[in-house]
Amino acid sequence: MKKYSENGDFLKILEERILKDGQVPEKDVLKVDNFVNQRIDVAFLREVCGEFYNRFKNEKIDKILTIEASGIAIACMAAQYFDCDVVFAKKGEARNMGNDVYTAKVTSFTRNRVYDLSVGRRHISKGDRLLIIDDFLAEGSALSSLCSIAGQAEAEVVGAGILIEKAYMTGGRELREKGLRIESLAMIDRMDEDGIVFRSGN
Amino acid sequence: MKKYSENGDFLKILEERILKDGQVPEKDVLKVDNFVNQRIDVAFLREVCGEFYNRFKNEKIDKILTIEASGIAIACMAAQYFDCDVVFAKKGEARNMGNDVYTAKVTSFTRNRVYDLSVGRRHISKGDRLLIIDDFLAEGSALSSLCSIAGQAEAEVVGAGILIEKAYMTGGRELREKGLRIESLAMIDRMDEDGIVFRSGN
Repeated sequence: MKKYSENGDFLKILEERILKDGQVPEKDVLKVDNFVNQRIDVAFLREVCGEFYNRFKNEKIDKILTIEASGIAIACMAAQYFDCDVVFAKKGEARNMGNDVYTAKVTSFTRNRVYDLSVGRRHISKGDRLLIIDDFLAEGSALSSLCSIAGQAEAEVVGAGILIEKAYMTGGRELREKGLRIESLAMIDRMDEDGIVFRSGN
Repeated sequence: MKKYSENGDFLKILEERILKDGQVPEKDVLKVDNFVNQRIDVAFLREVCGEFYNRFKNEKIDKILTIEASGIAIACMAAQYFDCDVVFAKKGEARNMGNDVYTAKVTSFTRNRVYDLSVGRRHISKGDRLLIIDDFLAEGSALSSLCSIAGQAEAEVVGAGILIEKAYMTGGRELREKGLRIESLAMIDRMDEDGIVFRSGN
């Protein structure tokens, strides 16, 4: 398979790729649909996910929990390092699913709407040690809702691995203050029409 | 990673897994959400996708085309064999996307509704050789729509790799008669409360 990093510096190749292929059509909006969100560079994501393994390899991980659709590819790539299954939360109305699902509401600030997440109860067991994986962290509503679902299942969230964090927004700080371990591979401090500034020393 | 097949008989382990974990809550409805559609057994799917490679390895494949959400995991596992990117079509109203997307309508017979598929134009290039991957084939509407999108992009569909085909339905036969090469790993001839019968000699 294609190889992107010469020396395992996964953070560097991710930042370089975001600068090369990411688009900022307006302030604070980053589109990475050319390698993550619609076209998926599988070999690249697989390599970058090695960094999630570097950071969580000392933890026992039973399952990776993510959200459809964009989380699935990243979660599947990460799961190959941890040798575990992926469970993804479905978006949309949790209709006609009765008591068979855990649900939580997510507020999408970019899309200005509220939607339901749902996971079939039988897919998360009590005591499961979960690693949450997602593509973006901004306000933290989706991540918070995944933690809620894990809590409903009496599972344990070992931590969260995020591909790109908008570090100038409040979600990451608030969830870290509540004790959640969050490992974000690219931390963006600022972005606008002039470019993208990454947090140094991440 | 976990290993499922002893001798590379991917079809056998898939049929066995469907019999073990698949649920037929009513006639002609097969739920495989325990290892494909919500909980994803990544190691298993990766192994089974080796069969797609066996069947298409003599073809040059530029990209794999699939549909969110359930197609993504399978497509990403297959892409690792073919060393190519995945592009997934989005479901739902193709709103506010103007001329930047290819779209096609899908009729879902099980859910009794029509929805749009859309793919950003920049993600498929003229002349791209595409392998379509999806989880199910029944009436063939989704597969037919993906072929339409490929046609709009002037790309070439090399073939389609399907995890589970309801072979008693008309979609597969009609699309094969039109000249599409379809390779389905599990071919179901009949399923009801008495069980699932696979087509022998697939």
